Amino acid sequence: MDKTRVLTGITTTGTPHLGNYVGAIKPAIAASQDPNVQSYYFLADLHALIKCQDPKRVQESRLEIAATWLALGLDTDNAIFYRQSDIPEIPELTWMLSCVCAKGLMNRAHAYKAAVADNEAAGQQDLDKGVTMGLFSYPVLMAADILMFNANKVPVGRDQIQHIEMARDMAGRFNHLFKGQYFTLPEAVVDEKVEVLGGLDGRKMSKSYNNTIPLFVSEKKLLKLVRKIKTNSLEPGEPKDPDTCTLFQIYSAFATAEETEAMRQRYRDGIGWGDAKNELFDYLNAHLREPRERYQALMEDPGYIEDVLRKGAERARAEAAPFMDTLRHAVGLGRFI
Amino acid sequence: MDKTRVLTGITTTGTPHLGNYVGAIKPAIAASQDPNVQSYYFLADLHALIKCQDPKRVQESRLEIAATWLALGLDTDNAIFYRQSDIPEIPELTWMLSCVCAKGLMNRAHAYKAAVADNEAAGQQDLDKGVTMGLFSYPVLMAADILMFNANKVPVGRDQIQHIEMARDMAGRFNHLFKGQYFTLPEAVVDEKVEVLGGLDGRKMSKSYNNTIPLFVSEKKLLKLVRKIKTNSLEPGEPKDPDTCTLFQIYSAFATAEETEAMRQRYRDGIGWGDAKNELFDYLNAHLREPRERYQALMEDPGYIEDVLRKGAERARAEAAPFMDTLRHAVGLGRFI
Repeated sequence: MDKTRVLTGITTTGTPHLGNYVGAIKPAIAASQDPNVQSYYFLADLHALIKCQDPKRVQESRLEIAATWLALGLDTDNAIFYRQSDIPEIPELTWMLSCVCAKGLMNRAHAYKAAVADNEAAGQQDLDKGVTMGLFSYPVLMAADILMFNANKVPVGRDQIQHIEMARDMAGRFNHLFKGQYFTLPEAVVDEKVEVLGGLDGRKMSKSYNNTIPLFVSEKKLLKLVRKIKTNSLEPGEPKDPDTCTLFQIYSAFATAEETEAMRQRYRDGIGWGDAKNELFDYLNAHLREPRERYQALMEDPGYIEDVLRKGAERARAEAAPFMDTLRHAVGLGRFI
Repeated sequence: MDKTRVLTGITTTGTPHLGNYVGAIKPAIAASQDPNVQSYYFLADLHALIKCQDPKRVQESRLEIAATWLALGLDTDNAIFYRQSDIPEIPELTWMLSCVCAKGLMNRAHAYKAAVADNEAAGQQDLDKGVTMGLFSYPVLMAADILMFNANKVPVGRDQIQHIEMARDMAGRFNHLFKGQYFTLPEAVVDEKVEVLGGLDGRKMSKSYNNTIPLFVSEKKLLKLVRKIKTNSLEPGEPKDPDTCTLFQIYSAFATAEETEAMRQRYRDGIGWGDAKNELFDYLNAHLREPRERYQALMEDPGYIEDVLRKGAERARAEAAPFMDTLRHAVGLGRFI
């Protein structure tokens, strides 16, 4: 029986922070180690071109993100880990899907509608101002990412459910038009209990709030950032509420149940903020030291990362290339003999 | 000094007829023999997917069109002759260009606007009804066709000038954003004196009027079709006007200046329509016999055509692959070492 195929796209912009790690990277890496699943992880670097026209940033970000996932233990023997841009079959499939995808479907895509709404709110005459064809047709590329490997399941955030539905639509339409079960209809998997971490200011940790703790900063910098986490003005000795405290929340996201319960007791016992911060730093630092060292070593050895990704691309193309032959034949673009 | 690079896309739908031959194929084939030009001819089969969802028709049409051009003497030693679908760098470049192409540009493309106007005229609520993303984004693919080989000149019909302007726009925008002269801005070359042939009913020979004489029908069928060409009711012996006569027009499109002048005299002398038709058939048949035989032999040897196109694709990719490496690097998708 075929294994379930799970596909995860990794955004290659920005520097991963503790919030990304707890909410997305950690569970995804745990999933990569499941031998009962055939999983695909890819750096979505063609997508990165939509938003970023700074080649240096795109290039650095790809390297950093690849190093991050490898340092954290992505199982690249079990999972197939590749760069989207190393799979030429993906843009080719994108074109094929474009020819079966109604423009009306894209008119209704969230990201495009949000851009139009922004233009409307700004009193723009041209509602498409600043919208590129990349932004507009992005769900077609995403459908190709998924359908290329006939993924059964795609873990996504709520905002991406619509794109999976669009991929299903294109898959169904292609199967119907060309009379065959070429594509599996993918399912969105939304983790309802994603752990959301607070940031330095207590709001959700997010690049857009500029309140993040990057995953792999130096010890010194990590300490400095932990000390900046906002607390209230209760004195040492006064009982404190762990459940409204960002320090505690971050601690419990990393600690075991027993350690968390012990810390909860210390809050009740009136731990001082200075001590709580030191405890959190020590805990985080102990937890991150090893992957941080691996990360730094990897960043100094881009050739190794290149090798890993090239091998992943070979494995991915070993599936994509013959499948694309089948698809070319299906639409009438096969060889003459 | 670099040769001028001329790129010609060949539509792969429909069966070529005498009108296509005289108006487009013949001059293009003559151009392929010019050693002072580096020319590229490609079967635009990715474009064919926009309009045709019948794989058998797409496949047959590609073979017929390739056989036609080869039978008529396309110089594949000088010119590079390939199938668009054999060059994976083209859809990849299409995606890159999508990310620098304003959606507003596509909103103004003729083919899209015509589809919207049709929906409007039909009282459709949804003005995008029946419009696929393939149709909508077709000028981006066409820009990739052209820019992939940095063509200097693109021979096109009037209706395609806009697409060349769009390709220039994308080229200029990419060069600007990524700070380099990556792309040459292509120029449209419009032949103002394209020969237009009359069809069986005297109107312009065109598939849409169903009045064509296909290029490579059998002798018997050719004679039958020539006999169907509409003439007036003048009797043999009565002087006739060659300049309003479809028979004469077709004859002169194939004949030398002397032969044409001699035929003109016979019209004045009152040639009968039966004789005029026989003369035209004899002339056409003599002219087409050899390429028709070559065409039939080619159609029976698809392996040979496959080889020719594969060799063409190798030559094309010998340019496209390293250029795409340069472009990947330019946008930040280069290798890590």
